[in-house]
Amino acid sequence: IALVQLGQPCVCLPPLRAAAEQLRQKDLRISQLQADLRRPPPAPAQPPEPEALPTIYVVTPTYARLVQKAELVQPSQTLSLVPRLQWLLVEDAEGPTPLVSGLLAASGLLFTHLAVLSHKAQRLWPRGVEQRNRALDWGAVGGEKDPPPPGTRGVMYFADNDNTYSRKLFEEMRWTCGVSVWPVGLVGGLQFEGPRIQDGRVVGFHTAWEPNRPFPVDMAGFAVALSLLLAKPNSRFDATAPWGHLESSLLSHLVDPKDLEPRAANCTRVLVWHTRTEKPKMKQEEQLQRGGRGSDPAVEV
Amino acid sequence: IALVQLGQPCVCLPPLRAAAEQLRQKDLRISQLQADLRRPPPAPAQPPEPEALPTIYVVTPTYARLVQKAELVQPSQTLSLVPRLQWLLVEDAEGPTPLVSGLLAASGLLFTHLAVLSHKAQRLWPRGVEQRNRALDWGAVGGEKDPPPPGTRGVMYFADNDNTYSRKLFEEMRWTCGVSVWPVGLVGGLQFEGPRIQDGRVVGFHTAWEPNRPFPVDMAGFAVALSLLLAKPNSRFDATAPWGHLESSLLSHLVDPKDLEPRAANCTRVLVWHTRTEKPKMKQEEQLQRGGRGSDPAVEV
Repeated sequence: IALVQLGQPCVCLPPLRAAAEQLRQKDLRISQLQADLRRPPPAPAQPPEPEALPTIYVVTPTYARLVQKAELVQPSQTLSLVPRLQWLLVEDAEGPTPLVSGLLAASGLLFTHLAVLSHKAQRLWPRGVEQRNRALDWGAVGGEKDPPPPGTRGVMYFADNDNTYSRKLFEEMRWTCGVSVWPVGLVGGLQFEGPRIQDGRVVGFHTAWEPNRPFPVDMAGFAVALSLLLAKPNSRFDATAPWGHLESSLLSHLVDPKDLEPRAANCTRVLVWHTRTEKPKMKQEEQLQRGGRGSDPAVEV
Repeated sequence: IALVQLGQPCVCLPPLRAAAEQLRQKDLRISQLQADLRRPPPAPAQPPEPEALPTIYVVTPTYARLVQKAELVQPSQTLSLVPRLQWLLVEDAEGPTPLVSGLLAASGLLFTHLAVLSHKAQRLWPRGVEQRNRALDWGAVGGEKDPPPPGTRGVMYFADNDNTYSRKLFEEMRWTCGVSVWPVGLVGGLQFEGPRIQDGRVVGFHTAWEPNRPFPVDMAGFAVALSLLLAKPNSRFDATAPWGHLESSLLSHLVDPKDLEPRAANCTRVLVWHTRTEKPKMKQEEQLQRGGRGSDPAVEV
């Protein structure tokens, strides 16, 4: 038996108080953790918006004919596989036509629809010159229909609508500083035409026809940085250039052949083919039409 | 001052013990909550796999020639835009070739690579019969190379590689019960050929050539439900059928013309065009090769 002085705190009280404080702290921690658990999980890391990717401006001249729609559906679907791409479709017409407008609207592509009627003399050859020059105006000088905003990084490519394009081609050209080049299959009577490369530099061209042209390359075989077009705003295709010199007429304004930038594994891979579509024969159509039984003109072909 | 009997527990001890037990419980709760927080968040809800969509089996015969690769790159890119699609590429060759194998591997498509060498007499015309029949065997009878598992819902379409296909065509054919049909552009000397529809049924065909053929439709103008091929496992294209009767030679096994299922807005929309690719001329290639300066054969074109 011991004497304990009443009024004096019991020796157990400090640990009891400490325990109560610890309990309070732990309750606080528990409610914090519960709040953390209720919080929605952070959004999964998204790939960054490809804002940094230079835009590819693909220029395609087009004119009314039987295969026009088929030959625009094809590239429109190929281009839809490529990110950060804008299609500049330039009609050889007085203004935009319903067929092309409808096709562009349904394509899901980012596009600019331009139109310029060729001079009569150029409706057969060389086709598409004024249309491509209209696109050059659009890119370099600015003007009608929302040209690229100042400072836009990009590259311009002249893609006729009957060639065959691998989707991989477009990634080859995206990071072009000046003018990039690569081989083109089934062109100029050859399996392929293309730059010859030594130590990563263009030292010549594999071509059968006029190898001494300044730039013996096909329209489908090069792309030009937008910044270079802006720096040389008067660069144009020359409709009066001799046959096979149309590409040279533009490129001579822009670059020295030795500064061409080889792409497609040092120009050893063919990613574009100069395929050509046969003109369809309409003999039966004419016969049926004479009998009033032609194809329903309300059906767009 | 009070007397306390030594050896008796202090009145404070039970609450102290209770507090210690509560602290232990709360530590346990805290470590549970911390474990919960460390657990990775549940995967975000994914859209359900489109298992319910019938598969589209696209059959394309192919043979070695200059434009072979270009003419396979083109449809491979179009088909890559279509979900639940399997490409049956059937080579006219003794076995799979490296060019086609490489192209398929790089395509990102679900594919089956088959090969059957045509009889010599059929290498010019009608092309592709044995290759299409090999695909019919694959779909209906089973056999080599993972045929579709029993009960697979699907549709088979014979897509030659030079036609132009809108991606929209494939959604038209996906839900075919027996045989579905639609117009084909730029074929048979007409703007388009196609079924004539009345009250939603096929009542005839717009065609100029032999309109009394049982099925005056182009190879690109119909698709067949896999279940129908399974029900009629002996249905084949007949290589000895007269010109223009190849499609009829298969379809006569399968369906009555009045039961054809019209698609593409009652056959008023053209979503496939019978475009043809010109054979490239290789005159310059031959000249250069005679001088030992031909195109590098190591470059695949």
